[in-house]
Amino acid sequence: MTKIVILGSGVMGSAIAIPAARNACEIVLVGSPLDNELIDAMAGASRSHPGLGVPMPAAIELVKVADLSDTHFAGADVVLLGVSSPGLEWGLERICRHVQGRPTLMMVTKGLDLHDGRTTRTLPPLVDETLHRRLGAALPFVGVGGPCIAREVAEGQPTATVFGGTDPGIVDACRKMFQRPNYQVRTTGDLVGLEACAAIKNLMAIGIAASWSANPPRQGADPGRRNMNPAAGCFQQAFTEMAELCQWLGGEKETAYGLPGLGDLFVTVNAGRNSRLGLEIGAGLRVSQAMAGALAGETVEGVDTGHKLAVGLAHAFSCGDLDEATFPLTGALLTSIVDDVPFEIQTRSFWT
Amino acid sequence: MTKIVILGSGVMGSAIAIPAARNACEIVLVGSPLDNELIDAMAGASRSHPGLGVPMPAAIELVKVADLSDTHFAGADVVLLGVSSPGLEWGLERICRHVQGRPTLMMVTKGLDLHDGRTTRTLPPLVDETLHRRLGAALPFVGVGGPCIAREVAEGQPTATVFGGTDPGIVDACRKMFQRPNYQVRTTGDLVGLEACAAIKNLMAIGIAASWSANPPRQGADPGRRNMNPAAGCFQQAFTEMAELCQWLGGEKETAYGLPGLGDLFVTVNAGRNSRLGLEIGAGLRVSQAMAGALAGETVEGVDTGHKLAVGLAHAFSCGDLDEATFPLTGALLTSIVDDVPFEIQTRSFWT
Repeated sequence: MTKIVILGSGVMGSAIAIPAARNACEIVLVGSPLDNELIDAMAGASRSHPGLGVPMPAAIELVKVADLSDTHFAGADVVLLGVSSPGLEWGLERICRHVQGRPTLMMVTKGLDLHDGRTTRTLPPLVDETLHRRLGAALPFVGVGGPCIAREVAEGQPTATVFGGTDPGIVDACRKMFQRPNYQVRTTGDLVGLEACAAIKNLMAIGIAASWSANPPRQGADPGRRNMNPAAGCFQQAFTEMAELCQWLGGEKETAYGLPGLGDLFVTVNAGRNSRLGLEIGAGLRVSQAMAGALAGETVEGVDTGHKLAVGLAHAFSCGDLDEATFPLTGALLTSIVDDVPFEIQTRSFWT
Repeated sequence: MTKIVILGSGVMGSAIAIPAARNACEIVLVGSPLDNELIDAMAGASRSHPGLGVPMPAAIELVKVADLSDTHFAGADVVLLGVSSPGLEWGLERICRHVQGRPTLMMVTKGLDLHDGRTTRTLPPLVDETLHRRLGAALPFVGVGGPCIAREVAEGQPTATVFGGTDPGIVDACRKMFQRPNYQVRTTGDLVGLEACAAIKNLMAIGIAASWSANPPRQGADPGRRNMNPAAGCFQQAFTEMAELCQWLGGEKETAYGLPGLGDLFVTVNAGRNSRLGLEIGAGLRVSQAMAGALAGETVEGVDTGHKLAVGLAHAFSCGDLDEATFPLTGALLTSIVDDVPFEIQTRSFWT
């Protein structure tokens, strides 16, 4: 029996457990230090995850962090990092402490890393280096991308996802563990592009959503209406800049044109915390105000991605590797995030 | 003073008059035989177009078809076809009857043509041939594409549009007539790609919208919620197929990646009649049932585009110019349109 240990029982870590459980994999779902209440809820009579609203398959073993031991990792074929980016260090620390043998490390965590304080890169090299340093060797790695709202995965809505890694055999083995009629897994060898898009689309979604609140319906119009002309211009611009940034980070543009880039951007604009932050800053709030207000206590991945991107990008602009004029939307977003000034969407600059 | 004669006073013909009128162009807005009530409404005290909900600039001259004469065309710099595809023949007939000199012919009409009963092509060659046949020569031609909801253009929401033509000087002259702070005009030399995308995105939007009603929220969920995972998979697939079809019709893939393709697809999925038809057929209705029901009396451009595309595409598949397997979404849409059978979205086939 295939055994999968998932670290992090937030919505994404828990949702991805479901297709694998339906495929009769043995699942150990481990709550992070922030997840005790989630584990309690799933261990209750309803077995329902508060963020997913569906009962978890009964066979999934639920473990609180305080109870976690080497035993839970024994014989694992896959260890899956299911945390959001602030939990990455915790997840890696736990893996290094408990892991035995050479399970494949899968990751749904999305973000970028700032290496040596100045080079923006995707997360897998950071993961590899951490494991090398603490374990003496990295683990086989498979990244997870593509358009996935966790709740919809949990409900069994048709979902197309992409697993990426440098060893096709290992990627395909993971695909078989998770593939379900309504959880379709494509594979790619462009791990860097997959990870780059997974992070960048969060940043871009902030900008597109901001165009909605920055261009509200006219007085007297249906207040629920969203103006789509400005959003469409931003969406197309975001797509172009995402593809360029993907390539700059070492990925392929085609990956940005596919499910990991375009597909995921489409989902992210329409749902989730990045889009909610965009609505706040499009209405005139600074990022710090929004994060202290409507989004207090929440992780908005695009903000962290913005900080990590800004440093490397400034260097790329200054040394001429990239032309700043190609990135008006990214530039406006990074200014609002890093300098904490009101977001100037200046859509006109995209379009002329 | 620049003079522009617009044929067709539906939402698009009327909306595009507004930026040009604000630029102090002389505008003659001509109602089609179906537009008498629209002209009456705009000539009333409110000057409001019923489909746009904003007052038209007072300087626009409003003309009913019965009153149209050569005089209205005298000195025109541009004649703009503002009709939907069923009105194209009427518009061309009127141009041939009244036009003097060599004004530029602009066109917002979107659709495809079936040449010799078997070759699918964009509209400009049809227009050119018609003018050649009746006038002895074609007119300089500029197509209009990009993400434009007419009502938003009329309201002055920031809009990015694309004018395309083979003579850069003429395209740029048109750009200057219409360009406004909130109506930004990009230009392209890829007229074929522009026209191909303008038509194909309508077809694709039907399929993406269908994914929403085909995958409704679970019982107990917010009924207004739309599941985005299936839609994102369809959106990405639509994008890929649109780019291939654009290229097949003689356009450039980059045009499909830009505002005329991706940008316009984003808008069209979220608003308008193509998307409404998609919601109907995704819920199980045949196209004929939807067109006799919720969409009775309306022009759904994607349906006509589907019929025109189906013939040429069948030929391209049979002679090996294109691989049918590359077009699962297009294939499913064409089957539902041409054979009038329930739409089988079979999303899984896109993703594996």
